[in-house]
Amino acid sequence: MADPSLTHVLPTGFRAAGHACGIKTDPSKLDLSLFVSGVPCVAAGVFTQNRVVGAPVHVSRERVPSTSVRGVIINSGNANACTGQRGIDDARWMTAEAANRIGCDESDFLVCSTGVIGHFLPREKLADGIGPIVEKLSDSTDSLVSAARGMMTTDTVHKLASRIVEINGQSVTVTGAAKGAAMIAPNMATMLAVVMTDASLTPEQASSILRHAVNNSFNCISIDGHTSTSDTVLLLANGQASGGRQSPDLPTSLTTAVTEVCADLSQQIIRDAEGAEHFVTLDVRGCVNREEAALMARTVADSVLVKTAITGNDPNWGRIVSAAGYSGIPFEEQECSLKVNGISLYEAGTPVDFDEATVSAAMATGEVHIELEFTRGDASVRFWTTDLTAEYVRLNSEYTT
Amino acid sequence: MADPSLTHVLPTGFRAAGHACGIKTDPSKLDLSLFVSGVPCVAAGVFTQNRVVGAPVHVSRERVPSTSVRGVIINSGNANACTGQRGIDDARWMTAEAANRIGCDESDFLVCSTGVIGHFLPREKLADGIGPIVEKLSDSTDSLVSAARGMMTTDTVHKLASRIVEINGQSVTVTGAAKGAAMIAPNMATMLAVVMTDASLTPEQASSILRHAVNNSFNCISIDGHTSTSDTVLLLANGQASGGRQSPDLPTSLTTAVTEVCADLSQQIIRDAEGAEHFVTLDVRGCVNREEAALMARTVADSVLVKTAITGNDPNWGRIVSAAGYSGIPFEEQECSLKVNGISLYEAGTPVDFDEATVSAAMATGEVHIELEFTRGDASVRFWTTDLTAEYVRLNSEYTT
Repeated sequence: MADPSLTHVLPTGFRAAGHACGIKTDPSKLDLSLFVSGVPCVAAGVFTQNRVVGAPVHVSRERVPSTSVRGVIINSGNANACTGQRGIDDARWMTAEAANRIGCDESDFLVCSTGVIGHFLPREKLADGIGPIVEKLSDSTDSLVSAARGMMTTDTVHKLASRIVEINGQSVTVTGAAKGAAMIAPNMATMLAVVMTDASLTPEQASSILRHAVNNSFNCISIDGHTSTSDTVLLLANGQASGGRQSPDLPTSLTTAVTEVCADLSQQIIRDAEGAEHFVTLDVRGCVNREEAALMARTVADSVLVKTAITGNDPNWGRIVSAAGYSGIPFEEQECSLKVNGISLYEAGTPVDFDEATVSAAMATGEVHIELEFTRGDASVRFWTTDLTAEYVRLNSEYTT
Repeated sequence: MADPSLTHVLPTGFRAAGHACGIKTDPSKLDLSLFVSGVPCVAAGVFTQNRVVGAPVHVSRERVPSTSVRGVIINSGNANACTGQRGIDDARWMTAEAANRIGCDESDFLVCSTGVIGHFLPREKLADGIGPIVEKLSDSTDSLVSAARGMMTTDTVHKLASRIVEINGQSVTVTGAAKGAAMIAPNMATMLAVVMTDASLTPEQASSILRHAVNNSFNCISIDGHTSTSDTVLLLANGQASGGRQSPDLPTSLTTAVTEVCADLSQQIIRDAEGAEHFVTLDVRGCVNREEAALMARTVADSVLVKTAITGNDPNWGRIVSAAGYSGIPFEEQECSLKVNGISLYEAGTPVDFDEATVSAAMATGEVHIELEFTRGDASVRFWTTDLTAEYVRLNSEYTT
């Protein structure tokens, strides 16, 4: 996890704000966020692979990659998804309202929405909120926290991560804000995340860094196996750390920093998963390739029987092995071994005699480490997930009505 | 559903029995079942596609199709899965013990086990039980019910279905017994079902009929999306209705009867799903082919967010549409419409203004009908599933420990 002393710092040249404009039922809750750069940014985005996408995904993905993005406007409490042409008009209108006040072209603003699906956006409330939120923009930590809070739906905590790295003698900051607590099974993206840096990048470099970072972070988490309509991860790079000078080589330290920020945010999403009582790290090793390892990991992570066994601190390892067995990977049972919290339960296709109480007590700490080992190759993946509790069921059976 | 007056009838020449041999913690619960034909049967089987399969699946699938099967022995309370070579030896031993007492070859007996994964079978308890259960064999309804009860794990009711059809002037009976209440997402088979008929079939006819029946029944249900290690559906045909005369043509009425028996049993499994409060019928229509419709149906049925919305009688239709959206089928939003209990909620990619209270009240009856309509082709599928309740979580977090 991030060094706490490094969190909550906006990169040079960025400002942020959060505001309550009344979209959420509780009028005191922040539901509007704004991230703005003083100068045009190189911007890259990764979006949900769901065929049904929110109107803001339609609008934003047309606008990246770009060399001229000035900001991102985000509302929570309403996903503006499954809303047809009127929804797309509303999303474009949001970017125009923000861009007019910032003094840039509508097409240089990106937009995200998160919340309930299938309801039209309340334009009047947004119109009343966009003026005030532009006034609130600042480079302070408080403003960054407010912006992170304005993105929240059922999240119980806001999610921020930062890294500072040195590139060509310049100190470069990478800071990201994310939201998400359910409908989390990102496929090429996750719920919402905005990652800002004052590094100088070409659009190709930004896209390449973001793709690498997402594949090793947001694409490696699942709460409930449900890929949302709104998943969006944006990377904005304004070059202000170096006065805009670009490096022809992709700096490895920057790729690492962006990946670490994304992994940190992903794990914060898992730790805040709706109703969750266990944080699960799932290592799948010894596969033919990374895709195979990832498919195995996702299948195990999404099994409600694996999840409920973890809820009960129950080392019912047959559920883990049988979930791997229906992943579609054609392994043989003898190729498979399993450890939970360091204790071997299943070895080369045969059960190991172990002390159930010891494993159960280790699981009851709330941190579960599943190691699924194959003898098929050298590829591996690390994946993060949660248990499934009665509280998750309660939260999700009482969401809209 | 079956006419109740037709249920609980064994086809001519079949006997059955159930027995308690102490595998289950509660010694009064039946945990051993036996189905025997007086003459050799043509037998076909369909088994789980999980790569990790129970030892009885290894043994039984080597022995079908066959023209000489005499019976099936089944234990509950222990799946004999993930038990390596010792498990396979145990499964073969079970068939030998039964076959010796019936007076047939070990290879003419089939075997199934269901229950917890990863524990070795208690041979002594089984050895003590197999003698008495053979003594109990009879063609009575009570014996058939006992056999159906001996297969149960967390099932709250036993599951039987029968059909009687006329073929070439002969009355032919088809009777099936099944078990299953969780770990239900059959892939080419389901938990356990034995279907018996006194019709006369060739092995090819039996295989063909069973494949058709399973594809339209057990392969169209899901409780929790977890394909088990033990799924097995067996069809035994002993020819006793017609004195063994075979028909060169596959009788359509028999295919229909076997399919109806399997569909009836499948729906009984869904109605007995662990913790379930809603029975959900999901019709997906207007697809390019049946595989596309089935993939869409399974993805919607397995979404925990769709399931928990149903738990709360919440017409949160965005969850249904977004689950279809991540199924992998490349549809456009405008191709999609949705009804719940006959009320249109989403039409050609745009939300419909509907009365939430009316839809919620219809869902609260416990019978939910989801109709997902596309304009891509003529293929359709009917699928059955359940909601996901806090009670399911409680049952499955307290299973072994």
